[in-house]
Amino acid sequence: MSRYDFDAPRLHLDAPLVSGGEIALTREQTNYLVNVLRMGAGDPVLVFNGRDGEWKAELALASRKSASLIAREQTRPQDQAADVSYLFAPLKHARLDYMVQKAVEMGAARLTPILTRRTQVHRLNQERMQANAIEAAEQCGILSLPVIDEPRPLDVVLRDWPQDRLLVFCDEDAPVLDPVAALQAHAHMKSCAVIIGPEGGFDPAERALLMKVTPSVCISLGPRILRADTAAVAALALVQAILGDGRDKLST
Amino acid sequence: MSRYDFDAPRLHLDAPLVSGGEIALTREQTNYLVNVLRMGAGDPVLVFNGRDGEWKAELALASRKSASLIAREQTRPQDQAADVSYLFAPLKHARLDYMVQKAVEMGAARLTPILTRRTQVHRLNQERMQANAIEAAEQCGILSLPVIDEPRPLDVVLRDWPQDRLLVFCDEDAPVLDPVAALQAHAHMKSCAVIIGPEGGFDPAERALLMKVTPSVCISLGPRILRADTAAVAALALVQAILGDGRDKLST
Repeated sequence: MSRYDFDAPRLHLDAPLVSGGEIALTREQTNYLVNVLRMGAGDPVLVFNGRDGEWKAELALASRKSASLIAREQTRPQDQAADVSYLFAPLKHARLDYMVQKAVEMGAARLTPILTRRTQVHRLNQERMQANAIEAAEQCGILSLPVIDEPRPLDVVLRDWPQDRLLVFCDEDAPVLDPVAALQAHAHMKSCAVIIGPEGGFDPAERALLMKVTPSVCISLGPRILRADTAAVAALALVQAILGDGRDKLST
Repeated sequence: MSRYDFDAPRLHLDAPLVSGGEIALTREQTNYLVNVLRMGAGDPVLVFNGRDGEWKAELALASRKSASLIAREQTRPQDQAADVSYLFAPLKHARLDYMVQKAVEMGAARLTPILTRRTQVHRLNQERMQANAIEAAEQCGILSLPVIDEPRPLDVVLRDWPQDRLLVFCDEDAPVLDPVAALQAHAHMKSCAVIIGPEGGFDPAERALLMKVTPSVCISLGPRILRADTAAVAALALVQAILGDGRDKLST
């Protein structure tokens, strides 16, 4: 789906963006633009750094191995992602890559891996999650990269839960009632966290902990079993539409 | 996420399911149960055929190459999927596999590939789409397989649009207003079709055609660009929650 000029590649950079400023490219970025995309001097690239909005830049080519960009004009001002966190039990390898990409694509501002009794993966490659988040942000026109936490045990995450953050517990054992009405009852909340359990679900003690959190709402994602990455998109779609930035771009 | 006994594999079969009935397995199914999962005589398998609900069956082992199942008891009665169709511009290879799986997982009762000016894929492997639909239904506890149409041109699909079917046009160029309110205004509709365009979007003539369809509603999926498979899940999550089977399992 497109709101952009798809001809211009879009890159995340960790450099200040100002008009006329030169941005050194890494060897990998140079290789991607020059050798993979076969771009030449003056070709346009969209860039963002999570702070200065999105800029149109031009490739300044020194050689096939060394290039830089010159920032020309801001194409979009910096925005702020809706305050929606995504709490999830980590998965293995490609499925985790995919889930991270999907959560970023759906505008999660923070990703928190949680360790539960039935979580099967305990060590995570933070760099790989970061790379997946950057890739999704580059492709999906996102201006703010999410914060990615180190994995934390569920009880630690739930302890001293902030009173201004709504916990949206996507409960596979909840009766299939109206999730929209349940979320709309909390539409005044400016901050929320969606939590989805591991395959096999939360155990009874963990469910009891979750049920004690306030403020919280327990919703069903429908009568079907969803894979974790599908549940992430479905839950974030509902939450963004009702509590987040799906309501009205102008008001965020 | 789990509501099931994950220990028992779940298979789609094209055979009647009655108590005590014997069901011949294909060579591939036998290989999967006996050699891959290393199951033995008497081990439980969940089976469904799209008509007779879900049954618990037992493996009856003749040899490593030939086995059958004996249906023992119905575990769930047949249900009927919500009347939600998914109309989509086909993608290539793995991305199409993924999108088909996601649409089935989200409970689409019918998948209709549509050919548009910017559709990049025109020939589709119907058998492969069917296999992906079956795999998703097996894994996600779904009892009714979706109908999968042959690809059809957009104008043919929109011509003589039925008056009792709401077209939900997910428009990347729509202003980001409240998609929930837009769908709720049509909550009385029992039948709907979600349509998502190709990468690059619908062209102006196609948009004009879409805008003329009645009954229809145009919604935004938020301020971010979504990949096609993500858009499928996000749109179907909203539509199922507001018009489909996410509202109340008991009333469907």
